[in-house]
Amino acid sequence: MRPTLDDAGKDLILRTARTQNGWLPTPVTDDQLREIYDLMKLGPTSANTCPARIVFLRTPEAKARLLPALNPGNVEKTKQAPVTAIIGHDTLFYDLLPTKLFAHRPEMRDNFANNPAFAATTAFRNGSLQGAYFMIAARAVGLDVGGMSGFDNAKVDAEFFPDGRVKSNFLCNVGHGDPAKVLPKLPRLDFDEACTLL
Amino acid sequence: MRPTLDDAGKDLILRTARTQNGWLPTPVTDDQLREIYDLMKLGPTSANTCPARIVFLRTPEAKARLLPALNPGNVEKTKQAPVTAIIGHDTLFYDLLPTKLFAHRPEMRDNFANNPAFAATTAFRNGSLQGAYFMIAARAVGLDVGGMSGFDNAKVDAEFFPDGRVKSNFLCNVGHGDPAKVLPKLPRLDFDEACTLL
Repeated sequence: MRPTLDDAGKDLILRTARTQNGWLPTPVTDDQLREIYDLMKLGPTSANTCPARIVFLRTPEAKARLLPALNPGNVEKTKQAPVTAIIGHDTLFYDLLPTKLFAHRPEMRDNFANNPAFAATTAFRNGSLQGAYFMIAARAVGLDVGGMSGFDNAKVDAEFFPDGRVKSNFLCNVGHGDPAKVLPKLPRLDFDEACTLL
Repeated sequence: MRPTLDDAGKDLILRTARTQNGWLPTPVTDDQLREIYDLMKLGPTSANTCPARIVFLRTPEAKARLLPALNPGNVEKTKQAPVTAIIGHDTLFYDLLPTKLFAHRPEMRDNFANNPAFAATTAFRNGSLQGAYFMIAARAVGLDVGGMSGFDNAKVDAEFFPDGRVKSNFLCNVGHGDPAKVLPKLPRLDFDEACTLL
């Protein structure tokens, strides 16, 4: 028999883990952020493109730059969270393929450099995959997450990525969640609503 | 101390797990596919939109419909894999919010229905997050995966989603990988190359 993840592991990363809307004051250390990254970076991406870029906001001053871009419902919890991560993607990710990420076939760069629409789709798709690995990895190292799409991407990009190379994707609060603020679990689609067997 | 995932669990889902390029003949059961879905469906999506739709190709006949859309390098391994999953997303995902996914605030549907560009971005981002949960969940239940972006999305959509409602995102072979066909692990970006601490 092949190994499988035990019940405690499945619970931790997906089954009983919950999106958090309030945060305890327990701090998150830089070592924990590095631990998240060192785990998430190992997840698969197309041609090892690894387009995700992450900005960790750890101080009230850094958070203050983000708050004007947030939908009102996301302001308080973001102020409260020990860390807010901006998950973005590098639109020029392909420039790192020949030198580091895909050095055995440096011509792979040109597939993206010569096709901006394909490059943009690749960055968004694989940056999103890495965003999911980020949330799973954070839970794996014992932290809670709360992803957020309710914000103005253009405002975040202007403030944090003014040269235009990186584009924001979504935000994710990180810390120790306040169990009292967790909302009821919403229903998911049944297998037959989401899947087809051919 | 909060629980964390143990080393065996981290290895299984991310650290030592590898993208597979060849497959052993060990079959994958429908029960295993349901087990994958029942785990992946619990991952977070924006406003519980759950846009991912999955078509599992389990037979040579079903695979034959996919092969003409594949880049040449993906044909043999896809023929060999016990199951190939087409990960797509429902462009009209928001029609399920009032009736099932977000019934406590049915007006959420209109945020998407009235803004097609926002809906398309939401479907692609969250369908990709769910694609990552799919790969993690498959590994968690003891299977290997091999994601693929090297195919013609328009051809796949015409063949499998002719009414245009679902759009293909990426493909993923599922089964028991052939260790002899695993490629050397490619380098990842260091923390300081991908992350910024503010």
